[in-house]
Amino acid sequence: MGRIEEALRERGLSLPEPLVPPGNFRLVRVHNDLAFVAGHGPFAGGTPLMQGVIGEDLSREQGYEAAKLTALSIFASLTLELGDLDRITGWLRVVGYVHCSPGFGDNAFVVNGFSDLVVDLWGDAGRHARSAPGQGPSPLNVPIIIDAIVAIA
Amino acid sequence: MGRIEEALRERGLSLPEPLVPPGNFRLVRVHNDLAFVAGHGPFAGGTPLMQGVIGEDLSREQGYEAAKLTALSIFASLTLELGDLDRITGWLRVVGYVHCSPGFGDNAFVVNGFSDLVVDLWGDAGRHARSAPGQGPSPLNVPIIIDAIVAIA
Amino acid sequence: MGRIEEALRERGLSLPEPLVPPGNFRLVRVHNDLAFVAGHGPFAGGTPLMQGVIGEDLSREQGYEAAKLTALSIFASLTLELGDLDRITGWLRVVGYVHCSPGFGDNAFVVNGFSDLVVDLWGDAGRHARSAPGQGPSPLNVPIIIDAIVAIA
Repeated sequence: MGRIEEALRERGLSLPEPLVPPGNFRLVRVHNDLAFVAGHGPFAGGTPLMQGVIGEDLSREQGYEAAKLTALSIFASLTLELGDLDRITGWLRVVGYVHCSPGFGDNAFVVNGFSDLVVDLWGDAGRHARSAPGQGPSPLNVPIIIDAIVAIA
Repeated sequence: MGRIEEALRERGLSLPEPLVPPGNFRLVRVHNDLAFVAGHGPFAGGTPLMQGVIGEDLSREQGYEAAKLTALSIFASLTLELGDLDRITGWLRVVGYVHCSPGFGDNAFVVNGFSDLVVDLWGDAGRHARSAPGQGPSPLNVPIIIDAIVAIA
Repeated sequence: MGRIEEALRERGLSLPEPLVPPGNFRLVRVHNDLAFVAGHGPFAGGTPLMQGVIGEDLSREQGYEAAKLTALSIFASLTLELGDLDRITGWLRVVGYVHCSPGFGDNAFVVNGFSDLVVDLWGDAGRHARSAPGQGPSPLNVPIIIDAIVAIA
């Protein structure tokens, strides 16, 4: 078992089924030492685990949880593509598109649900540049979409 | 004539005039073996071919068509910059910002209008990581903006 | 003093305190010859200098100014990370997420507040591919968020 996989288990976390892409795209595309990760939401396979607008249907704490579930879905896709999460040597850039109500403003808190887990698992290598814009109406009404660029060995 | 250009002709498709950038930016910026493609909409030159909100002014099928027209506008810009579309060896990452009504949710269907054409033309090399967030009010009220990172030879 | 720093001074511009990240992320993440810049707004340290919706609370000219202030905040972060702005050899890709009212449409004008300054300072090396989608509700209600990928020496 890999180091990251073991760290996930120690935290009581397990990976969901990889996302079933709802469109004509790849979950992860590798080019040289970079892996481009498609936008993911809080999914298990093709099923959204959370839906709704943060600040309206969902609290900011639930938004944080949605971002954490999205991280797990992304880890599942990366495991499928790379074979082992230990091949990830750096998290470079992340965008969290937050599906929230007018005047919400707490986007950063929400996307921390993703970033806190990544930094917990990868340490300094997990510390990424990040944007957290509000989005308009989201695919399948999921509360967040996150995509990423990671460095791989 | 290049292979991709010929494949476009076989499908009865032709490229529009390249986008006239509405701001102080480049259509395409090359760095090493990567080309960064600016956000495009369904344009011919400086003229938007479709405008409006998907799910309100436009159907999802019209949204699909807008994404396909956006692909053609992007191909025109890449031809201008690279000389030949055959230089593109991989489509790595695509973001489709969908201008849609609250509760729309069919973002993935819409952006397939772009992805289906790219994969049809480039095959496996065209299969990209993709995000399809909803956007707020869009530039010039176009129904979609798409940007990309491609690998070039 | 570096060339860019001197050019800023000649234009009567000075850099604000670097952004205090409101979440668990880095301002800039370097990988090989690329620097990934996190989403910034018009900030001095942790304080937003402008807030509100463009086209509603703020004019498009104020939006332009917000984009220019965002450029300065990004320059401050890059100076902190790289030591010297002269290390930036190219601005490759920029996304400006514009927080604007329905039907606004002038996104390109607004984000020029960023691009005009970058091109003024770096010349051709500053000319970047750019997207300017409208965003939904923005973090801390800032009128714009901008992120970037730059090439460094």
